[in-house]
Amino acid sequence: MSALVGGIEAGGTKFVCAIGRDGEIVAETRIATTSPAETLAAALAFFEHQGSPAALGVASFGPIDLDERSPTHGFITTTPKAGWAHTDVVGPLRRALGVPVAFDTDVNAAALAEQRWGAARDAGSVVYVTVGTGIGGGAVVNGRPVHGLAHPEMGHARIPHDRTADPFAGACPHHGDCWEGLAAAPALAARWGVPPQSLPDDHPAWALEAHYLALGLANIILTLSPERLVLGGGVLARSGLLERVRIDVRRLIGGYMPSGEIVAPMLGDRSGVLGALALAADLAR
Amino acid sequence: MSALVGGIEAGGTKFVCAIGRDGEIVAETRIATTSPAETLAAALAFFEHQGSPAALGVASFGPIDLDERSPTHGFITTTPKAGWAHTDVVGPLRRALGVPVAFDTDVNAAALAEQRWGAARDAGSVVYVTVGTGIGGGAVVNGRPVHGLAHPEMGHARIPHDRTADPFAGACPHHGDCWEGLAAAPALAARWGVPPQSLPDDHPAWALEAHYLALGLANIILTLSPERLVLGGGVLARSGLLERVRIDVRRLIGGYMPSGEIVAPMLGDRSGVLGALALAADLAR
Repeated sequence: MSALVGGIEAGGTKFVCAIGRDGEIVAETRIATTSPAETLAAALAFFEHQGSPAALGVASFGPIDLDERSPTHGFITTTPKAGWAHTDVVGPLRRALGVPVAFDTDVNAAALAEQRWGAARDAGSVVYVTVGTGIGGGAVVNGRPVHGLAHPEMGHARIPHDRTADPFAGACPHHGDCWEGLAAAPALAARWGVPPQSLPDDHPAWALEAHYLALGLANIILTLSPERLVLGGGVLARSGLLERVRIDVRRLIGGYMPSGEIVAPMLGDRSGVLGALALAADLAR
Repeated sequence: MSALVGGIEAGGTKFVCAIGRDGEIVAETRIATTSPAETLAAALAFFEHQGSPAALGVASFGPIDLDERSPTHGFITTTPKAGWAHTDVVGPLRRALGVPVAFDTDVNAAALAEQRWGAARDAGSVVYVTVGTGIGGGAVVNGRPVHGLAHPEMGHARIPHDRTADPFAGACPHHGDCWEGLAAAPALAARWGVPPQSLPDDHPAWALEAHYLALGLANIILTLSPERLVLGGGVLARSGLLERVRIDVRRLIGGYMPSGEIVAPMLGDRSGVLGALALAADLAR
């Protein structure tokens, strides 16, 4: 049996802390995200109470510094979340627990968890995209999450935007009509003037949404050619939207290359914390 | 000293065959690409004459089948090149030479060569993009070329296209105004009605070209965050274009994440065959 490891899904509203092995959680707690000092102390108290795990994985909101040669490796960097910009997350955990700590984005961790235990089991390369208050994307290629100079920020890619058909200027404070600025939940709310949940299934909003999602996903497929693409998040709860996206992606790629399988997540809101456990297990091996 | 290995850059007009080690070529020949049987026979004659290498790498024009579980692994698949669609390239070479054969796209191989011996030395993750008669992109992530269901086809991504500023409909037979359809050399020639070489440096064609290239590259950076992006090909021979692209990429990413270094290739037209040797060396190790 594998060693017990720890995982933290560090989110902007809550930290989910868990102890587990092999995709099974044996103990878990949820902590409201307040100040860094208070939140990290509460997380540490949980792990100390549970007995030190063999390793810890942290799946964090971002942007984060993943560069192991950087003096700020393990930090959350330029987040707009009050009190959390330039916060060392890994350092205090490593020092207090005395175990190796793996650090990645929440969406890279979710891609890893869906590959190991969820909707992308047995796929060699996986992309995970979530569409909610923003659009986040993570990927596992050649067995490991994709890191580079930083980490994927797929939500801020530019897609075609026909301003005659859709004069909405976009909702991204950084880029206006980037992918997230056109297709995340706040863009839907701002474009149509009502919460997206209240738009009926036959509203033209959903054909436009499917098209924008397909444009971004087709570009990701043409760049990475994942064996499986897991597409989730609150916006995808809309009945029929996933199938509309699939059809539009196939049309956009146009038989030029295989467009692959686009599937719903299987781990739901567990993918972040399970991904954190997967990161820890890979360190403890 | 490493073993001598063989490499083939299989192109649509010529096959470059080489024997070498550690990025040095010790013997080389160029064969015109005619029929598959004739071309592969001439390549085999070269390697048999040189003494069998420890392994062979093939860096091929595409699309190609890289899936080792597929019955057509090692084939060029749906190419429009007469006589070459659905051609087994790896099989005849492996059987005749009796050595392991690695197979990849010309652009993935070029990314590997530039990482090992060229402009991306010591970079952990590398993207290679070439802009000429088409736009091709390859990548090395987590130490190996990116494969998935198929391989990257970055040139066919969709980018924003303002038809008021640029009414040109696009030159891609598959997708019209995809990235390659807007920004490869045939698009420049069709849009302006003259060969791109004859457009003066101060022609508005070049600002538009820089913008289209930057849109596609920014999306790749937001998806993969490569430590280094190598940008080459005939169109980039235009003085000042690379610097214009760099500036526009920085503007598009807007400080949201590091945009990284965009550099010219160092290996020129050697990157394909050197990449084939790198693929072979990795197999022989």
